[in-house]
Amino acid sequence: MGRSGFRSASRTVKPKILVQLDTDAQPSVFDSVVAIDAGVDHLLRHQGITPANVRDRVHGAIFTRGPADLRYTAIFIGGSDVAAAEEVLAEVRRSFFGPLRVSVMLDPSGANTTAAAAVWAARQHLPLQSSTAAVLAATGPVGQRVVRLLARAGAKVRVASRSQSKAAAVCDAVRAKFPDARLTACAAASPEETAAVLAGANMVIAAGAAGVQLAAHDALAKAGVRVAIDLNAVPPVGLAGIEPTDRAVDREGIIAYGAIGVGGVKMKAHKAAIQRLFEANDQIFDAEELFEIACSLG
Amino acid sequence: MGRSGFRSASRTVKPKILVQLDTDAQPSVFDSVVAIDAGVDHLLRHQGITPANVRDRVHGAIFTRGPADLRYTAIFIGGSDVAAAEEVLAEVRRSFFGPLRVSVMLDPSGANTTAAAAVWAARQHLPLQSSTAAVLAATGPVGQRVVRLLARAGAKVRVASRSQSKAAAVCDAVRAKFPDARLTACAAASPEETAAVLAGANMVIAAGAAGVQLAAHDALAKAGVRVAIDLNAVPPVGLAGIEPTDRAVDREGIIAYGAIGVGGVKMKAHKAAIQRLFEANDQIFDAEELFEIACSLG
Amino acid sequence: MGRSGFRSASRTVKPKILVQLDTDAQPSVFDSVVAIDAGVDHLLRHQGITPANVRDRVHGAIFTRGPADLRYTAIFIGGSDVAAAEEVLAEVRRSFFGPLRVSVMLDPSGANTTAAAAVWAARQHLPLQSSTAAVLAATGPVGQRVVRLLARAGAKVRVASRSQSKAAAVCDAVRAKFPDARLTACAAASPEETAAVLAGANMVIAAGAAGVQLAAHDALAKAGVRVAIDLNAVPPVGLAGIEPTDRAVDREGIIAYGAIGVGGVKMKAHKAAIQRLFEANDQIFDAEELFEIACSLG
Repeated sequence: MGRSGFRSASRTVKPKILVQLDTDAQPSVFDSVVAIDAGVDHLLRHQGITPANVRDRVHGAIFTRGPADLRYTAIFIGGSDVAAAEEVLAEVRRSFFGPLRVSVMLDPSGANTTAAAAVWAARQHLPLQSSTAAVLAATGPVGQRVVRLLARAGAKVRVASRSQSKAAAVCDAVRAKFPDARLTACAAASPEETAAVLAGANMVIAAGAAGVQLAAHDALAKAGVRVAIDLNAVPPVGLAGIEPTDRAVDREGIIAYGAIGVGGVKMKAHKAAIQRLFEANDQIFDAEELFEIACSLG
Repeated sequence: MGRSGFRSASRTVKPKILVQLDTDAQPSVFDSVVAIDAGVDHLLRHQGITPANVRDRVHGAIFTRGPADLRYTAIFIGGSDVAAAEEVLAEVRRSFFGPLRVSVMLDPSGANTTAAAAVWAARQHLPLQSSTAAVLAATGPVGQRVVRLLARAGAKVRVASRSQSKAAAVCDAVRAKFPDARLTACAAASPEETAAVLAGANMVIAAGAAGVQLAAHDALAKAGVRVAIDLNAVPPVGLAGIEPTDRAVDREGIIAYGAIGVGGVKMKAHKAAIQRLFEANDQIFDAEELFEIACSLG
Repeated sequence: MGRSGFRSASRTVKPKILVQLDTDAQPSVFDSVVAIDAGVDHLLRHQGITPANVRDRVHGAIFTRGPADLRYTAIFIGGSDVAAAEEVLAEVRRSFFGPLRVSVMLDPSGANTTAAAAVWAARQHLPLQSSTAAVLAATGPVGQRVVRLLARAGAKVRVASRSQSKAAAVCDAVRAKFPDARLTACAAASPEETAAVLAGANMVIAAGAAGVQLAAHDALAKAGVRVAIDLNAVPPVGLAGIEPTDRAVDREGIIAYGAIGVGGVKMKAHKAAIQRLFEANDQIFDAEELFEIACSLG
């Protein structure tokens, strides 16, 4: 039995507490149910969270349990406004005191887990490092994270938006984080411009708003796209010819994923991430870490 | 052992989650404690709920668990404003997607469970179908539901209010739901009018506001009433001579129930209903369903 | 086995519910985590609590469980505004109905548990009844409670503040509660006045605001102080020469406690108090009761 008698003094098991910090006026039920199904024992749900009122919440999280037990408390930052959630995360980090900290997950609107699942799906079929990816509607919260994840994995990324300047701003922001990113800002305001964005890309990820079609199906085929992922579940979908439930479905020679098809992996990554929050007290799960978690699920 | 080895793939047991949607500025502690005592594992409490902010809550409830597990999530709609709660219920129903739905209980201010318990009490002593019931102060939230339940069970119902036109409006509303309802709208603004309402009725249920006496005790006796139920716990009670704690007490030949006497059944029905919410994912518990549950408790 | 077969009918075990009533716009995470670690099964957290909206919360707590089970529901009153919390407590008491009540703990900003722990620390080293204590910055929420606890234990207390009239008001308030209190109101606006306050005192407790130094270390030594307790954790500390983590540390002949050193006992008392809330349904834990609990922990 070897070391079976060994017990570290710090091996108490405390109830798992997740402090759910939501920037909206009502906290997300979605995030709460996933947390419960991931094994959280107690949810402390907060709405209307801003950088101004988050510090006391963080201090309550870090000053109540001994250092060895801080891993049993964690923070989830959600809400529909991704920029607001990022500001809250920045203030959460500033509120920690050296080793007195707890793990944090950032997933407002599911933007991080959705982007992670989308890039995970693409990676099942094509090596990212040698791919050229077109990201349509790349300036929204999900799109920006898709660009970040693809670029970090070594893909060449065409960052498309109706507005060239907005696309360029996204490229600048991603390069600030990943200087080696291979990015091209593209305008895609017309079918012709979109065709140019797609030409030669082997994968396309559409991260547009609900009900906005971004590309016709024959445009994908003509461009040589092999994997197409559409993250909009509300018809008309962003990439014509893809069904929301598609999951690695062959659509006239293109491997297609729809929003619901990607959703299964998103949900698994979300749950796994909540569970891993409680493995240590010093983790920050943003898009990159959540992508690693999605990939580790196999 | 027969089929003892059989296990459906969907027979996982998930924690029971109740989404408590309250239209008030603070959520009800009463509803929360009853839910916990009925076995709910996790309460997701929301205050300030309106039709405008409820859809996201519902989507969070229906999009997080697989179809076979949706029965382990349910919604409770409460608050002090019954009309507001009904509008929230309507929007909750509209937010479901076909089979993606969860069970819902509507019990703002306990109006449904109180009405159910009152009619249950009357039914212990007299067959409803051959009864003539007088409902005093019938235009409030509890009174309207008492009328609905009595009429649905086949009783002739005299729907009394100080205002004849308000009484008539209640009759119209109930008939819209139950076209065969046998209803008479009555004004009961004076002792004489009240005596006329009571004459020949074998049961009376008073659903008036706190501290308002609706009928003297000798008026009940003179009218031939055999069962009298008063839902007001604050003296003076609505039906003189009844104590709030009365539960099938003989008061000079009349079987009497007071508000607290009815409260025991109300509480049992409330708890049982919470438990039954989790037996299937497609139930709506409004007054009629809660009355059936009260009756099933025997 | 004698009476081992005996079971009282009321010996059901219900989940422990703590109704957390917070007067701030966001409920305290600190208080919630401590409650969970003290064994609370379900927290019902409320923010924005005022005397005007607390009555319904209390009724929900007292009207939902049978008298024998009311001990499994309790109320915690917190928030950063001590005066507001005290008004809420007064209204909570008024909302009870005779034996229909639940136990209540008042600890806004941790003022009560901090004061209890500070006086507990002093008592480890000197008999309170024969002591002369100087309380600096005695007019704040913690200082006032320190004065109350010392006076009740029989110590002579010098109640010091920059404003003599504010110090006198605190003395009046404490005498209203404990007529035998031996109190002297003192102005301590200059080093000379502070030296006069300290002269002959064998213990000093500093309850000042963060970062305000109240006395130099040699002033303590010169006055003959033997125990010095500083409740301010943010440098500069209130009593020069004391480290926040000091716990019965000898500082040039003076036994010193800093804010963090006192904090361990504060936390133990807080947790123990939450646990004891559920031993009966008629307890009110204010400063005095929390001091007794701290002392009982040994």
